[in-house]
Amino acid sequence: LPGYADVVTASQRLAGQAVVTPLLENQALNAATGGRLFIKPEVLQRTGSFKFRGAFNRIASLPDEDRVNGVIAYSSGNHAQGVAAAAQIHGIPSVIVMPADAPRIKVENTRSYGAEVVLYDRYHEVREEVTARIQQERGLSLVKPYDDPFVIAGQGTCGLEIARQAEALGARLDSVLICCGGGGLAAGSALALRELSPRTEIYTVEPEDFDDTARSLLAGRRLSNNPGLRSSCDALLAPMPGELTFALNKQLLTGGLAVSEVEVTAAMLAAFRNLKLVVEPGGAVALAAALSGKLETRGRTIAVVLSGGNVDVDAFCRLVGNAT
Amino acid sequence: LPGYADVVTASQRLAGQAVVTPLLENQALNAATGGRLFIKPEVLQRTGSFKFRGAFNRIASLPDEDRVNGVIAYSSGNHAQGVAAAAQIHGIPSVIVMPADAPRIKVENTRSYGAEVVLYDRYHEVREEVTARIQQERGLSLVKPYDDPFVIAGQGTCGLEIARQAEALGARLDSVLICCGGGGLAAGSALALRELSPRTEIYTVEPEDFDDTARSLLAGRRLSNNPGLRSSCDALLAPMPGELTFALNKQLLTGGLAVSEVEVTAAMLAAFRNLKLVVEPGGAVALAAALSGKLETRGRTIAVVLSGGNVDVDAFCRLVGNAT
Repeated sequence: LPGYADVVTASQRLAGQAVVTPLLENQALNAATGGRLFIKPEVLQRTGSFKFRGAFNRIASLPDEDRVNGVIAYSSGNHAQGVAAAAQIHGIPSVIVMPADAPRIKVENTRSYGAEVVLYDRYHEVREEVTARIQQERGLSLVKPYDDPFVIAGQGTCGLEIARQAEALGARLDSVLICCGGGGLAAGSALALRELSPRTEIYTVEPEDFDDTARSLLAGRRLSNNPGLRSSCDALLAPMPGELTFALNKQLLTGGLAVSEVEVTAAMLAAFRNLKLVVEPGGAVALAAALSGKLETRGRTIAVVLSGGNVDVDAFCRLVGNAT
Repeated sequence: LPGYADVVTASQRLAGQAVVTPLLENQALNAATGGRLFIKPEVLQRTGSFKFRGAFNRIASLPDEDRVNGVIAYSSGNHAQGVAAAAQIHGIPSVIVMPADAPRIKVENTRSYGAEVVLYDRYHEVREEVTARIQQERGLSLVKPYDDPFVIAGQGTCGLEIARQAEALGARLDSVLICCGGGGLAAGSALALRELSPRTEIYTVEPEDFDDTARSLLAGRRLSNNPGLRSSCDALLAPMPGELTFALNKQLLTGGLAVSEVEVTAAMLAAFRNLKLVVEPGGAVALAAALSGKLETRGRTIAVVLSGGNVDVDAFCRLVGNAT
């Protein structure tokens, strides 16, 4: 399992490559929560989501012989872009296996970083099988989306920055809310936050029907989501917690929260109006939890990660235009 | 007329009050321009536009006896919010005269900072007259939107930051593009840029039918726009250049560019897709000029200001949703 030192090492590898996204604060959102709400806008990260952090750290750490033929990844779209951009920086080819119904912007952006995109049917094919076949045929290295120590450590640099930035602002964080699909961002960030801000509560936030991590944390073992359900949060549809990520998260996290589609859409609108930031549905769940009272915010200092902003404008307007 | 030293003084007054907005760069936008394109996102500024800078500097500089009764301003909505927020910080009342057809978000936000909003008819009343009447009745101090040395110096802190941030990145700026209504942001920023980066070309950018500054710069004297024309760029509809702002701009600027409604909408979409930033029409003109080839961008290093992001989501979706 990775530890705090691996997050610090990742942060050194990422220096000059990843954006140190700011820690923002907004008067209207503070008023809405009755507390102090810090926003970590990973929508401003290279490739439009935090996923670049983990992908770059993984590829940068591969032995030369493992990356000579290139890398492969499966992803609904944010890890896809992160891996494609990181591979391009390293001058190696990348193949990305993506669901055919991924947002157009995610497919187009992934191609724009030079990746070969292979589409599969999310409801009738198993992405790991599609990926393994191509990986073996071409001798590629797999960059897993979350269940990898280097990926976890890379994502953890987001939490490392939150802890350092809050300290620089003289703020003591009562809670940090982190969106959760497979759990890599939460696990890595928790490694940093537990070390630097040990009294801070750390919660995952998931879509209502995809709250596998919340239920698994309560049960003490990995539980799956019901298959076949759908959500606008395309970035957060992992079937169950990862092995490594859950081993960390069950030690490090306070608990898991879940939000509804309506709460997600309201948070996207709040980010548009108040922060002037474009947030995709899966990127808005942590803000949604803070704004919809899933935990006590009054008089408390809370940080939320806006984890990604890769959403098609027509989908955005369909979701958020209807919420006004 | 204000000078560079006034901009530096303003920047000291604004420390800890205004956001030092980052200077962003994006791979896709660099590729689209064939150069290096820096983005100064004033949409992330307090109140969602650069206008807080000038308003705060003006109010902070008022003698006590001039601010005891409060301040008044006329504004289509961004200066309104800047003045209201700055007055609130100083604990004094504010009255803001706004056009009845201003975006809802601008009226609501202005009220949210504690201001009293007085609406007038943009097409049948003269805002200066409405304002003067209330000002005299109540003994308020007028905070002009641009033709004031303290306002100009405050807006100039945006240009000061651009110059310093570009230098910190080791970049030499070939051009800086600045949106222009009355010319305060351009004049103030030009004071800083001429001092710190004397070889940088500085252009205003205006909507096609509101290119009074561009034509005035060519003519060497202040020319008006045709009255009665409309534009989505509600923030940039000043009838003619200011006296003070034009006196500075005719000395300091390289020239003026103009962009069409279609180019503005395309820039708003590019900011949504690539930068994950919400930009209002008037805030997107400088990016529009860079992306639509109004000046040579190939192989050049250019900074553009995204001056504001206060746009209603339904208006945004009507404009940008249709552009896809």
